[in-house]
Amino acid sequence: MKQEIGFVQREVLKEKPDFSSLGFGKYFTDYMFVMDYQQEIGWFDPRITPYEPLTLEPSAMVFHYGQAIFEGMKAYKAADGTIQLFRPEKNMKRLNESCERLCIPQIDEDFLLEAIKQLILTEKDWVPDGEGTSLYIRPFIFSTEPYLGVRPAKQYKLLVILSPSGAYYGDQLSPVRIYVEEQYVRAVIGGVGHVKTAGNYAASLKAQEKADENGFAQILWLDAKENKYVEEVGSMNIFFKINGEVVTPRLNGSILPGVTRDSVIELLKYWNIPVREERISIEEVFAAHARGELEEVFGAGTAAVISPVGELTWNEHAIAINDYKIGELSQRIYDEMTGIQLGKKEDPFNWTVKVEQVEV
Amino acid sequence: MKQEIGFVQREVLKEKPDFSSLGFGKYFTDYMFVMDYQQEIGWFDPRITPYEPLTLEPSAMVFHYGQAIFEGMKAYKAADGTIQLFRPEKNMKRLNESCERLCIPQIDEDFLLEAIKQLILTEKDWVPDGEGTSLYIRPFIFSTEPYLGVRPAKQYKLLVILSPSGAYYGDQLSPVRIYVEEQYVRAVIGGVGHVKTAGNYAASLKAQEKADENGFAQILWLDAKENKYVEEVGSMNIFFKINGEVVTPRLNGSILPGVTRDSVIELLKYWNIPVREERISIEEVFAAHARGELEEVFGAGTAAVISPVGELTWNEHAIAINDYKIGELSQRIYDEMTGIQLGKKEDPFNWTVKVEQVEV
Repeated sequence: MKQEIGFVQREVLKEKPDFSSLGFGKYFTDYMFVMDYQQEIGWFDPRITPYEPLTLEPSAMVFHYGQAIFEGMKAYKAADGTIQLFRPEKNMKRLNESCERLCIPQIDEDFLLEAIKQLILTEKDWVPDGEGTSLYIRPFIFSTEPYLGVRPAKQYKLLVILSPSGAYYGDQLSPVRIYVEEQYVRAVIGGVGHVKTAGNYAASLKAQEKADENGFAQILWLDAKENKYVEEVGSMNIFFKINGEVVTPRLNGSILPGVTRDSVIELLKYWNIPVREERISIEEVFAAHARGELEEVFGAGTAAVISPVGELTWNEHAIAINDYKIGELSQRIYDEMTGIQLGKKEDPFNWTVKVEQVEV
Repeated sequence: MKQEIGFVQREVLKEKPDFSSLGFGKYFTDYMFVMDYQQEIGWFDPRITPYEPLTLEPSAMVFHYGQAIFEGMKAYKAADGTIQLFRPEKNMKRLNESCERLCIPQIDEDFLLEAIKQLILTEKDWVPDGEGTSLYIRPFIFSTEPYLGVRPAKQYKLLVILSPSGAYYGDQLSPVRIYVEEQYVRAVIGGVGHVKTAGNYAASLKAQEKADENGFAQILWLDAKENKYVEEVGSMNIFFKINGEVVTPRLNGSILPGVTRDSVIELLKYWNIPVREERISIEEVFAAHARGELEEVFGAGTAAVISPVGELTWNEHAIAINDYKIGELSQRIYDEMTGIQLGKKEDPFNWTVKVEQVEV
């Protein structure tokens, strides 16, 4: 599948937005990467083309049967002026895992990563360098075949679009209020919660709406079978620091295996801080608080990196975490991760990948 | 929301396909109904326009977060030459239920139904009249706002497209082999299985692929919590006739409330045949077979109307239903339902709606 990547020049470049107030996912760069799939051909015609509207049949299967998956990654302007990615091979691997579960034909991970690098190099002036900013990278695949029978499509489109973005939750780490959802569920074992498919996010909106109405920033999701075990927070993985030990729900088939989650675990091990992946019930969390042992709670995900939790509400019972202050460990992880991502700190894990060496 | 429906004339009409070999969901008519939504305006600009490709931003939220819902209905050429719909108000109501769960702004049910009638009248030459044929109607709504933050979109598109179709599973009722899926699940309570959202279908494809590979036509889905209770078959509701009584899983929050399901129940009551909606385990089904009491099994849905099950396999244990023959009751229900739909039989329930009276 090593193919030449085509290039279609844009007539007029866009005016760039103010990089000091980007928000998240609002602006898109001049170019995008596109590749098509047809059953008889495989993935074909990889190309970098102007970012522009797509043309799709009303019967395109994605609108009806939802075969749509995506990834979220970031490119950072490093301290030395180079552009770098953070563990992009993990995202490529997960993209294929999502493909597999959704019956979407797999992609060549190395090829796509090289194509993404080439796209970023084309758009290097769009990589912001302000505090907390990055070039958000969104690879996604969806079905395009015009047909209404229920079966895997025979035609797909893969795109990579780029969005210069500020910090997801604003510029400062600030602890948020979250509540434990008991009516709606995010995912169940045997379903698709462990992969990044569009339908998971659609299904989560109702609970998020409820959260907003009640003044909460995020939802803490429980498992769908017993409504008892902690799964995720909003669209992030979650960590609890209890009596000096860090616990995060183990990957059970309904939890998304986050790249940030994995990195936090690696980092803690490197620091010799005890960390365990295991099933943890919401009762245990509240019991730890009652014992005065619940020291920190934080979410971990690509968009926010680390999002400290200041308050947890379950059945009208609210508990304050670390007196609504950012935990010491949360801050340390955030500083270390963003330090590595921005090339300001050493990278003993070889997590960062420079965008210079394009080999396509 | 009573608005004038615009009309954009098509330059050249399409050549019609051979109505004797339509298949399902492959051909689309000359026109479609379209309506847009913006948060500040509400639903606006309802119009009947040429069926043509849509133009969407690559960042349109539907590709990323999957807010997409749909309905499936049919228009029939009745024995007297008129065109009629079957319980369309039920589909309009369910469309709004899907809207509600997926945080999509609701539509005016009466208005949309009148718009659908107007569209069908425009396309009356596309309603086929061969055995088992109908004009399949697909209303659907999806998010169009170009934004990558996770929240309900502020812009949507509603379309209604029409597809002249043959019988979903070919022209004759013929019993199919199905197997009981124990690894994958379709839906869980607290999720979105009770509404018609695209993601449900995407999530079901993997198990269908497994079914195909093993020579089965459909999947029998069990509940996600205990992997024990029968939910649906493929994308249909399911009925069991056990010792003279008909049982179908009760609507529990993860089962789709099918219009055909409801109609079968009504019909059975009308005929004074005992029918119960209740939780039924797969063990009970197999036990009934062991006692020689499992008389008939059939799926019920808009596409196929009635689909008899000839064989059921659970954990490598296969049982034959009614010796692989179409059950007497299955056939009777099929004949009655299609008879009513085609205006060949009396309609004591006032289920059919003529498409003449457009009041927009």
